[in-house]
Amino acid sequence: MKGSVRDSAILCKQAAVQIAELSTDAKNALLRAMADALEAQATTILAANAEDMTAAREKGIGEAMLDRLALDEGRVRGIAEALRQVAALPDPVGQVTRSERSAKGFTIERVRVPLGVIAMIYEARPNVTADAAALCLKAGNGVILRGGSEAVRSNRAIAACLCGVLREAGLSEHALMLLDDLSREAMLELMQLSEIVDLIIPRGGEGLIRFVTENARVPVIKHYKGVCHLYVDAKANLDKALDILIDGKTSRPSACNALETLLVHADVAAAFLPRAARALRERRVELLGDERARALCPNMGPASDDDFATEFLSLKLTVGIVDSKDAAIAHIRRHGSDHTEVIATEDQAAAECFVHAMRSAVVMVNASSRFSDGGELGLGAEIGISTTRLHAYGPMGAESLTVERFVVRGDGQVRHPQSRLPTP
Amino acid sequence: MKGSVRDSAILCKQAAVQIAELSTDAKNALLRAMADALEAQATTILAANAEDMTAAREKGIGEAMLDRLALDEGRVRGIAEALRQVAALPDPVGQVTRSERSAKGFTIERVRVPLGVIAMIYEARPNVTADAAALCLKAGNGVILRGGSEAVRSNRAIAACLCGVLREAGLSEHALMLLDDLSREAMLELMQLSEIVDLIIPRGGEGLIRFVTENARVPVIKHYKGVCHLYVDAKANLDKALDILIDGKTSRPSACNALETLLVHADVAAAFLPRAARALRERRVELLGDERARALCPNMGPASDDDFATEFLSLKLTVGIVDSKDAAIAHIRRHGSDHTEVIATEDQAAAECFVHAMRSAVVMVNASSRFSDGGELGLGAEIGISTTRLHAYGPMGAESLTVERFVVRGDGQVRHPQSRLPTP
Repeated sequence: MKGSVRDSAILCKQAAVQIAELSTDAKNALLRAMADALEAQATTILAANAEDMTAAREKGIGEAMLDRLALDEGRVRGIAEALRQVAALPDPVGQVTRSERSAKGFTIERVRVPLGVIAMIYEARPNVTADAAALCLKAGNGVILRGGSEAVRSNRAIAACLCGVLREAGLSEHALMLLDDLSREAMLELMQLSEIVDLIIPRGGEGLIRFVTENARVPVIKHYKGVCHLYVDAKANLDKALDILIDGKTSRPSACNALETLLVHADVAAAFLPRAARALRERRVELLGDERARALCPNMGPASDDDFATEFLSLKLTVGIVDSKDAAIAHIRRHGSDHTEVIATEDQAAAECFVHAMRSAVVMVNASSRFSDGGELGLGAEIGISTTRLHAYGPMGAESLTVERFVVRGDGQVRHPQSRLPTP
Repeated sequence: MKGSVRDSAILCKQAAVQIAELSTDAKNALLRAMADALEAQATTILAANAEDMTAAREKGIGEAMLDRLALDEGRVRGIAEALRQVAALPDPVGQVTRSERSAKGFTIERVRVPLGVIAMIYEARPNVTADAAALCLKAGNGVILRGGSEAVRSNRAIAACLCGVLREAGLSEHALMLLDDLSREAMLELMQLSEIVDLIIPRGGEGLIRFVTENARVPVIKHYKGVCHLYVDAKANLDKALDILIDGKTSRPSACNALETLLVHADVAAAFLPRAARALRERRVELLGDERARALCPNMGPASDDDFATEFLSLKLTVGIVDSKDAAIAHIRRHGSDHTEVIATEDQAAAECFVHAMRSAVVMVNASSRFSDGGELGLGAEIGISTTRLHAYGPMGAESLTVERFVVRGDGQVRHPQSRLPTP
C-alpha cells in the first residue's frame, strides 16, 4: 500500500482493463485456481484468523460478532466452494441481451460490458473478501476491498492468496486491491474518485452505509435496512400464512430479509392472531402490537410508530390489524424500506393488486420473505441487495456488475446521404 | 412555487405514485391530450416565446442560441407530434423481462417499475420541457423540470398547458413540477434530496453538468462531452470510410455524436488522407493533424494533445496516423470520452477486436457516429445519452427511466421447512 489512495485506484483501473478482456474460460480457470489456492493455504489463513480472534476477544467483542469473524477448515473450504460456484455461473460479459435490424439496414445489439472498478466497503466477515472479489472479477471488473478492522489479518491472508493467483496467471495483482489501512481522510478520498471508481457497494450497519452515502461522489448502491412486511389478507390460507410468518421471523432473525412486521386483515384477525402469537411465543419471539392487536392478544406490548419502522434484527415483531388491503398498502408505504414485502392470500386479484401497488425491490405472494436472496432468486451468488431504485433493485449478482452498451454493425450507412460525395 | 424546494419535491413524489399506477392506455391518452392541448394553446405559447426572444435579443444572445430558443407554429406542431410518438411507444412499466420457476416451485419474475421522481436540469430549448415530461410520465414517473432562464416564459406556458391536462384527467398537476426560479442555494438543496428524488439528468454544457455532478447527492446520469472517433483500418473500404467521415463531421457538427477525430492506418493514409482532406475542406472543415498527417496534407494545422481531447462542436477535426489497430485503440482509450467510436474496415476479425477492446457506450462498425441517438437506435425517443457506466450506457429512452424488480409467486413455500409448525 505505497502511494496515495488515488494512485492505488489508478493501478486497479489499469489492471481492470486486462480483466475486462479475459475470456470466460480464462476467468473461470482463475476463479477455480483461487479456490484451490485458498484450500492449499488454509493453514496460513487460519493462523491469521486466530490472531484476529485473539485481538477481538481482547477488545471484548460480542459472541455473535466473534462467530462471524471465526474461520475453521470447514469455513475455508466453504469459501473455496463459493468461488467454484461463481466460476460455474454464466458469464454476463459479452451477453447479447437484444438484437435488432434497423430500417436503414444496420444491426443494433445490446451487449453487456463490465462496469470498470468496484469498491466494496464492508464490516466483519472475512468470507466477503473472497466472495466479492470473485463476483467482481467474474463480471470483468477490478475490485477495491476495504474490509473491517477486526478481520484485517484474515482479509490480508485471503487477499494475498488471491493476488498470488492473479500474478501466476500473468495478470496484474492490482485488479484486486485490499485497502484496509485507510484513514478516515483516505476513505473520503476514495469515495470522491468518480473518474476512476465506477461504483461503491457498502455492506454493514446503517451507520457505515449512511457514512458512505453521505460522503461519496462515486455512485453508491446500497440498502439501509430491511423492514419486511407480511400482510395476511382476508382470503389467506391461514396455515400457509403461519408457515410463512414463522419462517420469515425465526429462521434467521439477523438477516435483512427477516420479517419485522405482521399486518392482519380484521376479518381473519380473531382466527389467526392468537394462534400466531402462541406459535411465535413458543419460539421466544417478543410481540409489539397496535391497540386492536393487543385487544386480541393481551400479552402483547404496545408498538410505537418508531417500532413499526425499525429493523430489529432479533426475535421481535410488530403487529397491526388493518381493515383492508389498501390500509395494509398504506401502512407499508409509510413504514417500509423498499426491501421485501409479502402477501398471503388465495385471492388472485388481491395478490395482483398488492404486487402492483408495492414499489419494493422484491414482492412475494404466498412465499417467505427469506427467499429474498440472490441464491434463492436464481442469481447464483449475491454481492448485495439494492433498495436504490437505479441500476439494480433487489438482490445483485454478477450481472448487476455489468451494464448494457450498444454495438452497431453496418455496411457504410450514413445518416444524411445528401452529404454523400460525388464519385471521384 | 410556494414553500420550499423540499416541499415541492415531496408533492411531486406523492403525485408520482398516481402516475406509477396508471394503465398504459390512460398514460397514452394523457400524452395525446397533452399534444392536442399544446396545439390548441399555440397562440399563448408563441406569445410567451416572443417575449423570451425579445429579452434574449436585448441580452445580446448569439444567433445559434436564438435559433434553439425560437418557436413558431411548425415547431409547436413538432413538439405535439413528438408527444404523440411517445404515446405510441411500448410501455416499459410492468414489462416482464424474465420469468423462471425455482426448484422450490415458486415463480420468479423480473418486472419493470418506474424510478419514482426524475429531475431534469437543462438549458435553452423549450421543446425539452415537453419531451422530457412526456418520457418521464410514459415511464410512470413524476418529473421536476429546471429549465434555462432564457426560455423561462416559453417553459412556463408549455408546463401550464401540460399541467392543465393532468388536472382535467383528475390527476395531481404536481406530477409535472416546473421549478425555474430556483436560487443557487435552492438548486443545491434539490440536488441533496436523495430520499425524494431518484435521479437527476443534467443536459447542457459541460459547466452545468460538472456543477450538478459535483454537488448532487441524488444519483446523476450524464455525459460531459462526445469526443467521437473514426478509425479507418488498413482493410477499410475507402469509399464507405469517406462517406462515414463526411456524414460524421459535417451533417450536424454541433451534435454530441459528431466526429471530432479521424485516425487512419498508415497503410492507407496516402490513399485516403489527401482525398479526405480535400472533401472536408470543400465543406469548410478545418483540419488539425499530428506530424505524419501534416506531412501528407501540408495545409493541415498542428494538433496538440488537448486538441485530441476536445469536443469542438464545430467544423474542426483532429487527424492522426497510426501504425496499427492497437495504436488506434490506445489513442482512443487515452483521449476518448466513452461516447461513440467507429471503425471502418472490411476485416471482420479486426472489427470484432475493436468492438471488444472499446469500452465506449456505442461502438459502430462501418456506420456513421451520427446514428448514436435514441431514435436511430430503436428507442423511439431519447431523454439523454449516458456515459456513466451504471444503470444506462448510451442513448436513454423510456425504458431507462424504469428499473427491474423481483416478483415471486408461491404456494406457501418457506426457506427452512424445519420451522414448520406441528399441525394443531
